[in-house]
Amino acid sequence: MIERHADKHSETKQGQVTLSGTGYVVGVDIGGTNLRVALADMSGKIVAKWCGSTEGIRDAGAVVAQIRKGVDLLLEEAAIPRSLLRAAAAGAPGVTDVDQGVVIATSYLLGWRDVPLRMLLESMLGVPVTVDNDVNLAALGEAWAGVAQGARDFVFIAIGTGIGAGIVLNRQVFRGMGWTAGEIGYMLVPGVSEEFVERGKPGALESVVGGAGIRSGWRNLGLQNNTRLPEDLTATEIFDHALDGNEFACAILQKAAQALAYAIYNMSLVLSCPLFVLGGGVGKHPALSGETRKFLKERGTRVQPRLEHSILDKDAQLMGAIRMALDTASSRDGVS
Amino acid sequence: MIERHADKHSETKQGQVTLSGTGYVVGVDIGGTNLRVALADMSGKIVAKWCGSTEGIRDAGAVVAQIRKGVDLLLEEAAIPRSLLRAAAAGAPGVTDVDQGVVIATSYLLGWRDVPLRMLLESMLGVPVTVDNDVNLAALGEAWAGVAQGARDFVFIAIGTGIGAGIVLNRQVFRGMGWTAGEIGYMLVPGVSEEFVERGKPGALESVVGGAGIRSGWRNLGLQNNTRLPEDLTATEIFDHALDGNEFACAILQKAAQALAYAIYNMSLVLSCPLFVLGGGVGKHPALSGETRKFLKERGTRVQPRLEHSILDKDAQLMGAIRMALDTASSRDGVS
Repeated sequence: MIERHADKHSETKQGQVTLSGTGYVVGVDIGGTNLRVALADMSGKIVAKWCGSTEGIRDAGAVVAQIRKGVDLLLEEAAIPRSLLRAAAAGAPGVTDVDQGVVIATSYLLGWRDVPLRMLLESMLGVPVTVDNDVNLAALGEAWAGVAQGARDFVFIAIGTGIGAGIVLNRQVFRGMGWTAGEIGYMLVPGVSEEFVERGKPGALESVVGGAGIRSGWRNLGLQNNTRLPEDLTATEIFDHALDGNEFACAILQKAAQALAYAIYNMSLVLSCPLFVLGGGVGKHPALSGETRKFLKERGTRVQPRLEHSILDKDAQLMGAIRMALDTASSRDGVS
Repeated sequence: MIERHADKHSETKQGQVTLSGTGYVVGVDIGGTNLRVALADMSGKIVAKWCGSTEGIRDAGAVVAQIRKGVDLLLEEAAIPRSLLRAAAAGAPGVTDVDQGVVIATSYLLGWRDVPLRMLLESMLGVPVTVDNDVNLAALGEAWAGVAQGARDFVFIAIGTGIGAGIVLNRQVFRGMGWTAGEIGYMLVPGVSEEFVERGKPGALESVVGGAGIRSGWRNLGLQNNTRLPEDLTATEIFDHALDGNEFACAILQKAAQALAYAIYNMSLVLSCPLFVLGGGVGKHPALSGETRKFLKERGTRVQPRLEHSILDKDAQLMGAIRMALDTASSRDGVS
């Protein structure tokens, strides 16, 4: 599905393209079920977007072929010659070695281990590519074009099925020695389980704050929950019922908000960080941020961390990918 | 008390000192009870040390006068003219704005609020001065001359009366927007109190892992503790008794080690950091590190954080201050 943008490259036509700074980049957001590709000009303005699916596709080669298909369709649709493509960047939902361009491990949805994604994409697209963790790219997107513009240090927390954080320090994404900085799903705070959790399984914090954990918490209420609500509700539906005053939904919301507030508090102690941005389908629910703010206020830190919603929403990762593709294009220009 | 070093400035005599790179720097470690001053040459080699006391002194001006006295004694003793002094750096036990040179707040021992320590020291010593938090300087010391040499990212955890961390990322001390990065005494982990704690009072983690908290935990055992051990033991004495098999001492040690392991685990998730260095009078006790390692192993992280003891011990802060004074000297040279 191609979505064309009204404010697109009206002034960029074939023949004008030898000027320095002209060209296009591709940003890619690889999800467990969706695949999104955007074509942008060198100012970062999106020309067109394409959405595909990764549902049922676990093979990295097949995903890369899908991306190639999307890029081809976008170039064709926008009547842009392939030679104007300068660089690409892709975000994958897993631990990613940015230097080597390798996705070390993703969750069960893709099941990737040590996938040389950069090499695969560079072969397929014929341009320099950078790959990174998707939440890191979302943080970069918010820093560039979202709610964290101008912030030196902040943490982006993505809450969907699971939870993960992208950390920006001194205006750079901080990835850590093991490329896992911000993998907070396993964080231990009061109120979560201290049981050992295998890698790849939902962590202690994730089980309480992530969408899958919240759903399963609701189902586990079982007979206690004698309201007439269905057993199978999504996390955001449960939060909606909490806002409507359902006591069981409220209890689940309170538990999630308290654990999230404690995790944010702990991170603010470690990083002395004043801004936390909530994104993702579950993270953007106002009931969660509202209650989390209340728990944070109770802690009375020296500098109360500010909690904001992502304004780029589901485009955060794609915008971060475009920003990173622009950086990739200019750094390769500098080298050559 | 002056302590002269055998391997000192034999080759540096008056008259030779106009050569570029010659000169001396001063490192200062301001504690709640002790004051330590070291004179070092431009290679960082310590020429002589002086120890004073801050016991009963709360006034910053009086502390600075003490420091001046120490520097004068050291220069006199080593027969070094004041004109060869190039820079100084001092660590204070509190939140410190390094850019402004202001100690924003210390604990009750000194009770400082917004003390312009850099200005006071520059006036008193007549050379450029940098001031920083003492644990940050200890981390810098370990990175320069201790167990963390060569480490890109690591966390130094000082455990004495209280607990605090100095964080080195990308070979730089990371201080955070509010200058409080690493203030982990308030961290919330399973097993600690969730009660609100006023600023300046021992935090949740500190109450379980810090020396004062451990002592008070022992005293609070009261009648339960029917061993013949005294009620008033230090944290390290309690750990010694744990090693001897005293069950009450063991329980306190286990609680401290578990909370410390959880805090290290949480930090390793946030920072993806492979090395943690334990320092301070309580932190260096082998029983604590031994038990903490056991709890950490149970978590099974992707990359198990390595736990090491400080090798500079009580000199870590002083060495960090010397390193920072050397940097101060060279950066001022660069500017002028």
